[in-house]
Amino acid sequence: MNAIDNLVTLLSRLPGIGKKSAQRLAYHILESPRSYPLALAGSLSTLHDSVRRCSICGAFTESDPCPICTDPSRDASLLCVVERSQDVRVIEDAREYRGRFHVLGGLIAPLDGVGPDDLTIGTLLTRLGNDRVRELILALNPTVEGDTTSLYIQNLLKSMPLTVTRLASGLPVGGDLEYADRLTLARSIRGRIPM
Amino acid sequence: MNAIDNLVTLLSRLPGIGKKSAQRLAYHILESPRSYPLALAGSLSTLHDSVRRCSICGAFTESDPCPICTDPSRDASLLCVVERSQDVRVIEDAREYRGRFHVLGGLIAPLDGVGPDDLTIGTLLTRLGNDRVRELILALNPTVEGDTTSLYIQNLLKSMPLTVTRLASGLPVGGDLEYADRLTLARSIRGRIPM
Repeated sequence: MNAIDNLVTLLSRLPGIGKKSAQRLAYHILESPRSYPLALAGSLSTLHDSVRRCSICGAFTESDPCPICTDPSRDASLLCVVERSQDVRVIEDAREYRGRFHVLGGLIAPLDGVGPDDLTIGTLLTRLGNDRVRELILALNPTVEGDTTSLYIQNLLKSMPLTVTRLASGLPVGGDLEYADRLTLARSIRGRIPM
Repeated sequence: MNAIDNLVTLLSRLPGIGKKSAQRLAYHILESPRSYPLALAGSLSTLHDSVRRCSICGAFTESDPCPICTDPSRDASLLCVVERSQDVRVIEDAREYRGRFHVLGGLIAPLDGVGPDDLTIGTLLTRLGNDRVRELILALNPTVEGDTTSLYIQNLLKSMPLTVTRLASGLPVGGDLEYADRLTLARSIRGRIPM
């Protein structure tokens, strides 16, 4: 296989990048100054050496424990459970939450062969036993797998002295009632709040 | 800047990849086996060494002249002018054309400061003088810049004993009259063909 086709094949393994997009990217890289692919190659080849998972929360980090777990100004009584490491970044970008995180590493999905033991639920229970967590926020996607996982964790924690909450479902800010799907609208009615 | 942000910044310089997509790609790469980013890094770092432009047609190639320019079974009396190297691949994939190519390296776009001298029009004239080209096919995008460039080249070649053609504009195969835009429909009527 020649160099361009090889690059196209590798790029098309990325999520959301089909063969046509991969070709477009490969030719763009070919037409870039040589410094660009070299910088990208450098970044890719050192990535797995410089980034690991935080031994406390499971998020990707360059220092272990990660900056969030070691930040004394964050509220240790709040713990937010997310599916993947990138969800930590998304929630941080919203600038609303000042507690800590726990990365599950996936969602319970029996059809895909993912059970509770494949997630970091054991570590979560240990953390809840050691730390003085007052509230556990389940910030999982509002999908069948997300809801199943939330219910599973909620059941596990029934006897523990802490509040379990989940993110609100409802209309996106700036959205239009007319374009909301039936389930989202139903949830936003069920979860209506006093003004 | 940390390793993940650095990769995100580099990836978001690719066409069609915004910051959100770049983050998604970066986390996907982080979660891939280490062999994947290493393979991609290897491909990127050798790309500019193994791929150069064909000294005859200007297309990207690993051997100079390129396989198309040196293929004796191709019709040397047909020359297809394209904007960029990737257009050669697109036309090859259609499996209809058996002549040779000439890559212009761009289109005349006065607003972007691209004039005829920035393209390989001089090389094209030399090739037409040396080779026995019978027909020149202008396969440029049906845009203002593409049409301007086609007209410019057509004017240059007026006195030469060769036929100049351009690709047909019209309805896409499998398309719907109702969704065709006015200009495309007008061109397809003007260019109607006897059955």
